[in-house]
Amino acid sequence: MPNLRLALCQIDPWVGDLARNSEEVLRWSKRAAGSGADLIAFPEMVLTGYPVEDLAFRGSFVEGSRAALVDLAAKLRAEGLGDTPVVVGYLGRGEPGTRYAGKPQNCAAVLRGGEVVTRFAKHFLPNYGVFDEYRYFVPGDQLTVLRLHGVDVALAICEDIWQEGGRVAATGQAGAGLLLSLNGSPYERDKDDVRLELVKRRAAEAGCPLVYLNMVGAQDELVFDGESLVVTEDGELLLRGPQFEEALLVVDLDLPAAAEDGLPDGTVLADGLKLTRVDLGGAPKESAAPVAPQVGERLDDEAEVYAALVEGTRAYVRKNGMRSVLIGLSGGIDSALVAAIAVDAIGAENVYGVSMPSRYSSQHSRDDAAELARRTGLHFRTVSIAPMFDAYMGAAELTGLAEENLQSRLRGTLLMAISNQEGQIVLAPGNKSELAVGYSTLYGDSVGAYGPIKDVYKTLVFKLARWRNAQAEARGEVPPIPENTIVKPPSAELRPDQKDTDSLPDYDLLDAVLARYVEGDEGRDAIVAAGYPAEVVDRVVRLVDTAEYKRRQYPPGPKVSPKNFGRDRRLPITNRWRQG
Amino acid sequence: MPNLRLALCQIDPWVGDLARNSEEVLRWSKRAAGSGADLIAFPEMVLTGYPVEDLAFRGSFVEGSRAALVDLAAKLRAEGLGDTPVVVGYLGRGEPGTRYAGKPQNCAAVLRGGEVVTRFAKHFLPNYGVFDEYRYFVPGDQLTVLRLHGVDVALAICEDIWQEGGRVAATGQAGAGLLLSLNGSPYERDKDDVRLELVKRRAAEAGCPLVYLNMVGAQDELVFDGESLVVTEDGELLLRGPQFEEALLVVDLDLPAAAEDGLPDGTVLADGLKLTRVDLGGAPKESAAPVAPQVGERLDDEAEVYAALVEGTRAYVRKNGMRSVLIGLSGGIDSALVAAIAVDAIGAENVYGVSMPSRYSSQHSRDDAAELARRTGLHFRTVSIAPMFDAYMGAAELTGLAEENLQSRLRGTLLMAISNQEGQIVLAPGNKSELAVGYSTLYGDSVGAYGPIKDVYKTLVFKLARWRNAQAEARGEVPPIPENTIVKPPSAELRPDQKDTDSLPDYDLLDAVLARYVEGDEGRDAIVAAGYPAEVVDRVVRLVDTAEYKRRQYPPGPKVSPKNFGRDRRLPITNRWRQG
Repeated sequence: MPNLRLALCQIDPWVGDLARNSEEVLRWSKRAAGSGADLIAFPEMVLTGYPVEDLAFRGSFVEGSRAALVDLAAKLRAEGLGDTPVVVGYLGRGEPGTRYAGKPQNCAAVLRGGEVVTRFAKHFLPNYGVFDEYRYFVPGDQLTVLRLHGVDVALAICEDIWQEGGRVAATGQAGAGLLLSLNGSPYERDKDDVRLELVKRRAAEAGCPLVYLNMVGAQDELVFDGESLVVTEDGELLLRGPQFEEALLVVDLDLPAAAEDGLPDGTVLADGLKLTRVDLGGAPKESAAPVAPQVGERLDDEAEVYAALVEGTRAYVRKNGMRSVLIGLSGGIDSALVAAIAVDAIGAENVYGVSMPSRYSSQHSRDDAAELARRTGLHFRTVSIAPMFDAYMGAAELTGLAEENLQSRLRGTLLMAISNQEGQIVLAPGNKSELAVGYSTLYGDSVGAYGPIKDVYKTLVFKLARWRNAQAEARGEVPPIPENTIVKPPSAELRPDQKDTDSLPDYDLLDAVLARYVEGDEGRDAIVAAGYPAEVVDRVVRLVDTAEYKRRQYPPGPKVSPKNFGRDRRLPITNRWRQG
Repeated sequence: MPNLRLALCQIDPWVGDLARNSEEVLRWSKRAAGSGADLIAFPEMVLTGYPVEDLAFRGSFVEGSRAALVDLAAKLRAEGLGDTPVVVGYLGRGEPGTRYAGKPQNCAAVLRGGEVVTRFAKHFLPNYGVFDEYRYFVPGDQLTVLRLHGVDVALAICEDIWQEGGRVAATGQAGAGLLLSLNGSPYERDKDDVRLELVKRRAAEAGCPLVYLNMVGAQDELVFDGESLVVTEDGELLLRGPQFEEALLVVDLDLPAAAEDGLPDGTVLADGLKLTRVDLGGAPKESAAPVAPQVGERLDDEAEVYAALVEGTRAYVRKNGMRSVLIGLSGGIDSALVAAIAVDAIGAENVYGVSMPSRYSSQHSRDDAAELARRTGLHFRTVSIAPMFDAYMGAAELTGLAEENLQSRLRGTLLMAISNQEGQIVLAPGNKSELAVGYSTLYGDSVGAYGPIKDVYKTLVFKLARWRNAQAEARGEVPPIPENTIVKPPSAELRPDQKDTDSLPDYDLLDAVLARYVEGDEGRDAIVAAGYPAEVVDRVVRLVDTAEYKRRQYPPGPKVSPKNFGRDRRLPITNRWRQG
């Protein structure tokens, strides 16, 4: 069987930065060429970053992307890389004279010899969860098959392999020797198992090995976790790339020789896809040695979630051109975990913490905040909110919830004042359990540009804190989070002796009900039937249903669960459905 | 030609409130039956309200809607209305055994004799602008034609008549005598002209009169303006319902008799739609008298926009179960217009204003705020923010922008404190020009649950203020907005002698550039080529591109323009595209 050496560039593009992304493709292509690759590939829409959202409607951006593609082809040749085909994703348009002429498309192209050799567009467009591609793109209608060193390589983009039929079936019909899919597939907990099973199934359906090349990095709420895969048609895993890291993955594959009597160019295949053959030439190459699988270890659950939160935070700060962050440190577990994430993401020297005690703050809260700062090495200061509190209480009659929220808002205002003065971005400490039931103060603890744990349920917050401390211990380092922060009962400390459990069920119970109601869209009756106390379910359902406005006002944060409060859960604010 | 008397119920459903909406359909059906109607019709998804967004994924809600439909049919008969067919929109599911079995659909049904006589689903699903129906629904695949009193009435839902082909073409093929379309079509400035032209064109294509029944009311950011239409196949306008008002519209139409040798049930028509004939019986009715067109006057541009803002505000307050609103009154034109809208929406007795002067507030600002309160009769108080300001300045070193924003945030915090204590919802006064360029303070003047003028450019704010005052004068009433508020130069008054023009171009110029960049998605070069100063365009483009985060955090408000900062303009926050 002829051999192909593929170089898979699992990299992190920046949305909108065509010049930077082109440079990155060039830089990685040089590295890849140095490895003797026959074919170099990059992720979905690598030239523009992903997702571009309404930038797809801006003609100047589409034209910029198309021009950058042509320019990149020339630069590759100028750098002496003209001989190796490079597959890159970009934002294109429907070809003139076709049904979709001029409309934006999620495209990929093959560059070689200073030219754009061929282009095609994604066939299946995802329009669920975090995806809205029917808004932005029109579908492609061809199956591109490259002949290279005597092997037929079929090309696909992301969703093309997530739906039945389409390019996977067409690849089988065309008898290709390899299916290469470019992806921008966002992270979600446990998704790696889903992906691996899917890739195995599709390889079997296509009847050939499948290369699944994913993006890494993060864009607003989406984190891309990499973990590119190569799987044979028999389901053998030949390669698994690292998670949350850029990587050049080089793999030698022995592949079936292309049939000389294969279906001709123009043949109509599954779902009406038109076979588009592109002959890149090159004599078949002999296999030098048997292929050793390169299967990296996968991170365990906590490590993986934590890495996603760190990557999301780092990318948001850096890609927005900022350097440092500011966090209100209450001594509680949420802000402590956020501080640990921030320190891991951008370094303690770029993390600023403020303790903002009020008359209701316990001594242990102040001590725990200071201890966290000591352990992590972040910048720390203390500013009392007592004078501001007194000024408001002197000006208006405030009691109960108004008095409680006031304290939280005074802290939010102080954080924003420091941020405006010194130039950090504020990180919001809210967790998903709080957000779900609206147990937070609008313009108070919800203040911030990014919420690193907004999609993390409170029970998982505890697990991640313990996990991060255990990691440090295993490495002989000081655990960042004070033990007392982890073991004390959670409290907002906005009135004397307040505990979260005064207002909410125990977090174990709350999170179990939320998982069914929020992630599972189960109704009230179904949750009660599953054995949860009716009065708790009714209370949780009522709280969740009336907190949509607050959730919409919350800063973005990395998505880690099947339904985050952001891109993929969109309830009406004004909503009178009160039966679950 | 046989005659049909149609009763079109242009009403306002509440999203999620199945019980209320069912009661409303029953109540309006009684009124309609009293007019001797042969067929009673309601808007798109009247049983659930529109749009339901992710409620479509909640099984309990879909089942609730289906059950409410069956229950409504029984109630109609129990109330003695069993003889008259009633067409209602609801949320349904794909029929068992079909390709889309069990998946949510945007449906309508005909109720008669206590039964659901027939059901069908929307064929074309809109997935642009404010619509995301590909996320939620699967399409219907039939053309339902009712035979009633010897006339064939074809049925459609909203988008079905906005796209080429589909049910309009199929109606022509089926030779129906009337096309009845149920709509939930949101308001947008100048859209009534677009709608009328569309309806005329589609009536000609269908070869029969077209009845366009629209919803009224508002849901979160969408306002439904009513203005139902009846147009003949020759383009004659027979009926135009009122804008922004519930109405029972009764119209007698002489229509072609149904052909006895028409296409049979099951015939496949345009776009694969299957003809579904439903015989409701009834002898042909003689025309009693020639039909007099009932064509109401349309509101002029300012009146229409103002009515949309009032309706949006009223609906948001009421449908969220609130009674009163709170507004920070600066003496400036934005808060003054918001106050006038609120007073018109829910009455002066439910509107609370607070003047919150700082050391930089001019005497005229305080006077203008008090004068506005005097003229409108809203509740008014003054609370100085000086003590709070001094407390913060004593605790942290704040200068420049940090000091300016602090004042705005102290006001936001005070508004929220009063709101929490007294129970009003806060209205945010920001206009679209400010929001576009980020000329507002996060957690400051952007505080609020609803922003009545967030989709209104500043130049239009001035026009609406003058228009509202002129209306009052024409009615012999006191104009609500003090003349000085309208004529003085806009200022945030956050530092001595500050003017908006210190930071921004003149609003005439700014709004002209924004209209091209935001509404038109024109690039920087195109705007400069159209004759706008390059340095202004570059500045505006840079400001707009970097303010997306702030805009996302802004409260919802009524959409009046082609692209509001909410449902239908979705740019990445992290966006490095800086060339327009």
